[in-house]
Amino acid sequence: MSDKPKTKAKAVDRRGFLKAGIAAGGAAVLATGARASESDPLITEIQDWNRYLGEGVQAYPYGQPSRYEAHVVRRDVEWLTASTESSVNFTPLHELEGIITPNGLCFERHHAGIAEIDPANHRLMINGLVDTPLVFTMADLKRFPRENRVYFLECAANSGMEWRGAQLNGCQYTHGMVHCVVYTGVPLRTLLEEAGVKTNARWVMPEGADASAMTRSVPIEKALDDCLVAFKMNGEALRPEQGYPLRLVVPGWEGNMWVKWLRRIEVGDEPWHHREETSKYTDLLDTGKARRFTWVMDAKSVITSPSPQMPVTHGKGPLVISGVAWSGNGTVKRVDVSIDGGRNWTTARIDGPSLPKALHRFYLDIDWDGSDLLIQSRAMDEAGFFQPTKNELRAARGENSIYHNNSIQTWHVKTDGTVENVEVS
Amino acid sequence: MSDKPKTKAKAVDRRGFLKAGIAAGGAAVLATGARASESDPLITEIQDWNRYLGEGVQAYPYGQPSRYEAHVVRRDVEWLTASTESSVNFTPLHELEGIITPNGLCFERHHAGIAEIDPANHRLMINGLVDTPLVFTMADLKRFPRENRVYFLECAANSGMEWRGAQLNGCQYTHGMVHCVVYTGVPLRTLLEEAGVKTNARWVMPEGADASAMTRSVPIEKALDDCLVAFKMNGEALRPEQGYPLRLVVPGWEGNMWVKWLRRIEVGDEPWHHREETSKYTDLLDTGKARRFTWVMDAKSVITSPSPQMPVTHGKGPLVISGVAWSGNGTVKRVDVSIDGGRNWTTARIDGPSLPKALHRFYLDIDWDGSDLLIQSRAMDEAGFFQPTKNELRAARGENSIYHNNSIQTWHVKTDGTVENVEVS
Repeated sequence: MSDKPKTKAKAVDRRGFLKAGIAAGGAAVLATGARASESDPLITEIQDWNRYLGEGVQAYPYGQPSRYEAHVVRRDVEWLTASTESSVNFTPLHELEGIITPNGLCFERHHAGIAEIDPANHRLMINGLVDTPLVFTMADLKRFPRENRVYFLECAANSGMEWRGAQLNGCQYTHGMVHCVVYTGVPLRTLLEEAGVKTNARWVMPEGADASAMTRSVPIEKALDDCLVAFKMNGEALRPEQGYPLRLVVPGWEGNMWVKWLRRIEVGDEPWHHREETSKYTDLLDTGKARRFTWVMDAKSVITSPSPQMPVTHGKGPLVISGVAWSGNGTVKRVDVSIDGGRNWTTARIDGPSLPKALHRFYLDIDWDGSDLLIQSRAMDEAGFFQPTKNELRAARGENSIYHNNSIQTWHVKTDGTVENVEVS
Repeated sequence: MSDKPKTKAKAVDRRGFLKAGIAAGGAAVLATGARASESDPLITEIQDWNRYLGEGVQAYPYGQPSRYEAHVVRRDVEWLTASTESSVNFTPLHELEGIITPNGLCFERHHAGIAEIDPANHRLMINGLVDTPLVFTMADLKRFPRENRVYFLECAANSGMEWRGAQLNGCQYTHGMVHCVVYTGVPLRTLLEEAGVKTNARWVMPEGADASAMTRSVPIEKALDDCLVAFKMNGEALRPEQGYPLRLVVPGWEGNMWVKWLRRIEVGDEPWHHREETSKYTDLLDTGKARRFTWVMDAKSVITSPSPQMPVTHGKGPLVISGVAWSGNGTVKRVDVSIDGGRNWTTARIDGPSLPKALHRFYLDIDWDGSDLLIQSRAMDEAGFFQPTKNELRAARGENSIYHNNSIQTWHVKTDGTVENVEVS
């Protein structure tokens, strides 16, 4: 995801849209159902699925989606990365609803491909500044009291190509390096207490068992706070591409720290300054200096429908604007939606569970008059942080970074219902 | 699931167990991690997965579980039903954690196989006692304001073979006709209001588009309360076996009413007394009379691990007792666990979200002394209802019914760690 973007932003003049007479947004309105047509053969005639027995249950079945949903996958284009092993697949946010991402659709990012590990041969070691170095089998870990928590996981590079104005064709590619599942695991605190952390311990370093041997430095305060050593996601075992059989969960912090295929946690008195926290996952400013240890994923949101991959096909009238919001600081308290490029904002309806450091689903149900729209969303988290505009973010940090772009996204809904990724000036 | 059970209950005498010196249960205890062994080759030697690149990301990928999890499926035995089209597959509860069931592992029950429906050709009609009969396409339905709710779905026949003492080999088969997902859909109330319900309307009848043309009578109060016309589960489209593209969600009520492949909702002034609410889904009492319209699924729970399919393999010491609880009356307020066949009870720890009419996860972390245990769980819901014992339930309702068995389940954990389904006397 560090490729230099090939295109610059296409700025759209908001003033042109203000003349277009935007419909009164915000009020929930009911769609007018089609009138019953007694001549519709889909109503009057018995369909095959009503006439014949369907397929029966199968032995040894792990269920799969309908063949009519074959387009709902983590990538529907060939992608330009140098290798498939250091590459990425994206959550199809535009096709999803609610706050839980199905395991088969969670974005994946690998640095050395997917390690295939027999859990019987997997070990987790805790060593370094501890009273007693420990080695755990998977069975050992499952004897500790466990917790279940819903958390989003976002790659620090999510939306990274947008910094310099690349305009990817849909929220799957602009924002799809985020997912949200229920994790089950043992608090890292429990395991560290079992080993006995020495008084001079200040940092821990999780290490992965894959060929990239991923390592990151994590401050001990976070390690003792809400981190989990997780073995389940959405109730079942972790998926291979998510670190099966064991991964670290670092709630609200950048995804690179959630070390997959977790095999070791070293306790130390200073950070390690490894590759993935120096040459990568630091934020180069215009001054030539880089911000480091920028762990928290700040308040962010995106409208998932309509969006470039999910155009409006039904013409004017009732239109559901749906999106997701999240913050590494806790819950999302409010999401505002604009349909005129940020001039006017309406508070959206947050629906479903509101859990800290988890996705939130929001809606604005409008009556679309068929004119151009510039739709945006802006999240505010429980710490009071708002999403910035792209220009505000660039003014503060420049355009050198590819990480931590949490700025407001704009979609241009055209009169024919197609949707384009644009920037407003 | 209406086959007459072949075995009678094997009663276990609790008094024998009381002599066995049960370890003090209830206190959360830490497992003693294995001591680090520097000679363990899994620690000292670089493994293949750390030495070589793993598999890369794939184009057009819908993710699948690890091949080491191939045993986690909805059925691992051949099942004795007369046909595969009127049959069932079971949620592997013993392998799951948290409260969300992955879509690929949700139990399924069909009366005429799985209808395979192209959503472009699916319609929902609302007719009967309405001002304006309406027909909706899937696209029409997606223009109404939508909601996201987490609900359990339980078949009324779940645990049905236990009434007369059949002892199925594991909670997947005794209790696995329940799952819990996030549904996204339009409130049925919204659609009924759109059509305009006449003042003499008292009931609605959802009808399925499959070859069984499933129908049930639902009182109008429930239809206008919390029912959803759902098109998503856990964020993605409904699975074919769960009614793709559209099903009715009837929170807290028996699963047979959650009509799949929903194509019509008729509004009427009295119940229809169709097959599935007369010869089936009624509860025959010892008196020869049958209870009907017994819709609510009452407070229930089961210990999922240890259980017959999930024996204790690690010997004595720290042991996680994990289970699920649910109630059609709302949230579960408390779960008690007994390790001595119901003589003594300890309040378990409910962990994770507590949402109305959804699964709850509970734990009791004990220090097992290696002696026989008779483990049980007992849920209490927000309406104050407790689960009954099997004998209490039989005394009240006899043994003719196969529906609505919410009684307490007992697992016998033996000294060698194997687990058997038993009854206590």
